[in-house]
Amino acid sequence: MIKFDANYLKEFTFQVFRHMGCPDAEAIVAADCLNQADLRGVDSHGVARLSGYVRLWELKRLNASPNMKITHETPSTAVLDGDLGLGLVTAPYAMQIAIDKAKIAGTGWVAVQNSNHYGIAGYHAMLALEHDMIGISMTNASPLVAPTFSKSRFLGTNPIAVAIPALTQPPFVIDMATTTVANGKLEVLQRKGEDAPLGWAQDKDGNPTTDAFALRKGGSMLPLGGDREHGGHKGYCMGAMVDIFSAVLSGANYGPWVPPFVPFLEPPANPVGNGIGHFLGAIRIDAFRPAAEFKAHMDNWIETFRNAEPVLGQDRILIPGDPERELTVERKKNGILLHEQVVKDLRELSEKFSLDFNDTFTQ
Amino acid sequence: MIKFDANYLKEFTFQVFRHMGCPDAEAIVAADCLNQADLRGVDSHGVARLSGYVRLWELKRLNASPNMKITHETPSTAVLDGDLGLGLVTAPYAMQIAIDKAKIAGTGWVAVQNSNHYGIAGYHAMLALEHDMIGISMTNASPLVAPTFSKSRFLGTNPIAVAIPALTQPPFVIDMATTTVANGKLEVLQRKGEDAPLGWAQDKDGNPTTDAFALRKGGSMLPLGGDREHGGHKGYCMGAMVDIFSAVLSGANYGPWVPPFVPFLEPPANPVGNGIGHFLGAIRIDAFRPAAEFKAHMDNWIETFRNAEPVLGQDRILIPGDPERELTVERKKNGILLHEQVVKDLRELSEKFSLDFNDTFTQ
Repeated sequence: MIKFDANYLKEFTFQVFRHMGCPDAEAIVAADCLNQADLRGVDSHGVARLSGYVRLWELKRLNASPNMKITHETPSTAVLDGDLGLGLVTAPYAMQIAIDKAKIAGTGWVAVQNSNHYGIAGYHAMLALEHDMIGISMTNASPLVAPTFSKSRFLGTNPIAVAIPALTQPPFVIDMATTTVANGKLEVLQRKGEDAPLGWAQDKDGNPTTDAFALRKGGSMLPLGGDREHGGHKGYCMGAMVDIFSAVLSGANYGPWVPPFVPFLEPPANPVGNGIGHFLGAIRIDAFRPAAEFKAHMDNWIETFRNAEPVLGQDRILIPGDPERELTVERKKNGILLHEQVVKDLRELSEKFSLDFNDTFTQ
Repeated sequence: MIKFDANYLKEFTFQVFRHMGCPDAEAIVAADCLNQADLRGVDSHGVARLSGYVRLWELKRLNASPNMKITHETPSTAVLDGDLGLGLVTAPYAMQIAIDKAKIAGTGWVAVQNSNHYGIAGYHAMLALEHDMIGISMTNASPLVAPTFSKSRFLGTNPIAVAIPALTQPPFVIDMATTTVANGKLEVLQRKGEDAPLGWAQDKDGNPTTDAFALRKGGSMLPLGGDREHGGHKGYCMGAMVDIFSAVLSGANYGPWVPPFVPFLEPPANPVGNGIGHFLGAIRIDAFRPAAEFKAHMDNWIETFRNAEPVLGQDRILIPGDPERELTVERKKNGILLHEQVVKDLRELSEKFSLDFNDTFTQ
């Protein structure tokens, strides 16, 4: 593990996207989105993914300078054709359209087709906060998850993010995969050589397993809840809803047709739509009640739940967004630790694009 | 258990609501909502709840002839003051407002305050289907659920329903509590004298328990996922989101302040809003893409998932809404079985309102 300054990584990421051909303004947003993932502790969706984006661009499965277009709209909705752009770019662009619509119509909802992996869902949802709006963000993703009672990998980890502003309290921010755990959690166990709890994954025949390598052996991840007895069908429902909102509404690929993020897997033949899909929403608070009044009640909600009685061995109740916000403070101060493999990938990128890269950097 | 014809129960329910003072049109909707719960297999939310509504009305905690008013609106949003009416009435009324707004603005979103228990969430969401719209419905509820790491009952089972139309396939209908199981599932185990699986409930100290009576002993239900290791914090996130959308946006009571449905418990002192809250949404399909095209893709989505490969011992993959639709066909044909206690309650209601009630009825 090598430690890097967060801003140094962001600047390097920006330069890579620029050299891929992204316009400056879009490269800034894309770099910020990956950087926020690293700061918030979603290491699997940060700079570790940068070389993957570059390889997809080299394979022409990703367009660095997309001509994004609204193909259909109403006062509160739009469909955005992302022109095979980075999801890191198309999703913030779509969220801005949603915010603009919410200013006039009260809410704005934008379905995106012809896009790519969009990083952490929470980044896009949080863009609404400074406008006194609730932000909603979801995306479908490469199929790794089996519907209840099945061994077919038909759904992605299909995350949902919801960001809600408060007054003096920090915002309430949900950012969650609709599976029991995100794939990154299994990768952590693989590196440690540890088993996974039951309910995280199943083997290729659909039997419960504790094997952290189950996916590499043809197994699948389980929807939130795990098996049927523990409500796994509800996680399947949530993942399915995200898939339909993101892709069937927008005209993107859904279910088993969602193209893989990894460059060594080919997209499925006979696609049912274009690229992968996202769904972004913005709800203007004062389309319901005065924003100051709402946010004062959010403070009360947050303070009430924070002061719920903890069980023995726990010292506090978390509010959605607490762990990520605290990690951000810590990592801005102390830096971001990267695995040697990730550093090696970044070094190769620096050579590919003739960029400076100081991997002995310390703050 | 005594078997009743579904239509007979609906007519009886209608008469009870009429005698409570509900206008005919509202009594019809309220009776239909309870009847659909019985047909769809959500026995805890059907005619079994009728005597509870009557007792709340007698205690003046429920207004049988509410003067519902829109207190604030934008092109795509509204807040409805339910005037302490039946949720069975205020929610369909709010959904109609959402549908009307979606016709013009593309989507419609209505937050309801000053309401009561609204029956099954799915009923209200499904009202959007015939308009080629997606329906969304959620409500908060009496606090029985502990946030992750807590032993405080601060959330209800806070359900989410999402109804999505298809073309030749039946609609896709999610209707789920954001807990591992609905409270009704624990009641079934209590009657059978059986234990609950781990992950459904915890005891009063927050320890995992298999005691189906845990709630009566000061314990609490667990959010979908169960404990932290199995993703219970994500169920907590979903339940919290439902609470905030239903009540903080609308001005209803939230968290521990949500008034209880049961008449023998007093509403909390110092309420933070009015009554309980709901959140209803309607999304016009052709605000995104032509409805026929969307619905053809929904057929493909449904057929694809239905044909996913089942695990050993399962013969098919379920699509959300399948079990409820199949039960409806069966119960319309064969009748609805009611527990003796429910029949006794109905008999007492018939005496209270001088109504005919034939409890030896068979089809």
